[in-house]
Amino acid sequence: MTDAFHATDEFAARFDSLLAWRRDVRRFKRDPLEPGLLEELIDRACLAPSVGNAQPWRFVSVETSEHRKAVAASFEAENAEAAKLYEDEQARLYSKLKLAGLKEAPVHLAVFSETETCLGNGLGRQTMPETLVYSTVCAIHTLWLAARTRGVGVGWVSILDPKVITRTLKVPDNWQLIGYLCLGYPIENHDDPELVRHGWQDRIDRSKVFFRR
Amino acid sequence: MTDAFHATDEFAARFDSLLAWRRDVRRFKRDPLEPGLLEELIDRACLAPSVGNAQPWRFVSVETSEHRKAVAASFEAENAEAAKLYEDEQARLYSKLKLAGLKEAPVHLAVFSETETCLGNGLGRQTMPETLVYSTVCAIHTLWLAARTRGVGVGWVSILDPKVITRTLKVPDNWQLIGYLCLGYPIENHDDPELVRHGWQDRIDRSKVFFRR
Repeated sequence: MTDAFHATDEFAARFDSLLAWRRDVRRFKRDPLEPGLLEELIDRACLAPSVGNAQPWRFVSVETSEHRKAVAASFEAENAEAAKLYEDEQARLYSKLKLAGLKEAPVHLAVFSETETCLGNGLGRQTMPETLVYSTVCAIHTLWLAARTRGVGVGWVSILDPKVITRTLKVPDNWQLIGYLCLGYPIENHDDPELVRHGWQDRIDRSKVFFRR
Repeated sequence: MTDAFHATDEFAARFDSLLAWRRDVRRFKRDPLEPGLLEELIDRACLAPSVGNAQPWRFVSVETSEHRKAVAASFEAENAEAAKLYEDEQARLYSKLKLAGLKEAPVHLAVFSETETCLGNGLGRQTMPETLVYSTVCAIHTLWLAARTRGVGVGWVSILDPKVITRTLKVPDNWQLIGYLCLGYPIENHDDPELVRHGWQDRIDRSKVFFRR
């Protein structure tokens, strides 16, 4: 039990800065994480909210070169496929974007959600069972922010065939892949999204996302 | 543009404390939020990561009493239905849990995800289109943490029929309800989950959720 959390303007300002500087990282140094740091981040991730306290998150550190090669091959294949969606200027821009840091990142973390857990006894997920998966997303985001507070960058690679990852890692049938993360110390630091900086997609205004009824 | 974010041990410790004290809040004071604070929280939420920078989150502040009554009625009906799942001691315990703070919370926020947005031009969501919804979950979690840094508690109500909420609020057909949030200043503060404290579901050990391959 720690002391009660007291909200202060100074902490809120630092926290806002953390949000801005979090960023999806695709350019990593090859240095390994400090010993024990990955476990520390997992423990922080487990403080995420979960429906019925079901804690459905399952983390797999992908360490062997054969497993990593299979993942990289899936990314290459799916990224080549995705590139075909674009034409002309957009195709040229897409081909120049760096969309993953799989080769350089010292840590690969596959994050799954257990889809048929008895933990939580079904509480809170009768009408919206998808909240189980959402809980695992909250854990990923918690890990992402906790990593950044320790100077570690995270990239979320979504250009993958989930079936390939699940088969490669031989996880139980009732585990659903939610995200594949690269972790490591970043080469560059930014407070604006890579896709804004390179002219792919700007930020939109609050008036487009906030309404009253 | 702010100064570069520097990770420090002191900030990391405060951040870890924020994670522990975040908590799902169901007991709210009736005091309104400070003027402008809700908009400030929405702006922080919009700093969440999103696939292809698609920013699919849409926030609806639910303000009229007729809309709130329809939401409360959906909770009451679905909670009564869910209670039938349990027997004996578990049924007794379920009936004693407080699972929402809809009546007291000064702010109700329905959060939707736009499912067919052209923003982001489809980047990153060809093989895992569900990452669009996950982006909105990250925005909810960002808002939750940002609220706590300002002393505001958030509760996520999942015991609702999403069709009722969508119909009541008359949102566009391609908006999917992700979460219904109650916001307000909390009456109690805790660093342990309500469901642990009341013996519904304990926390599980890291060895149950972390693996190497």
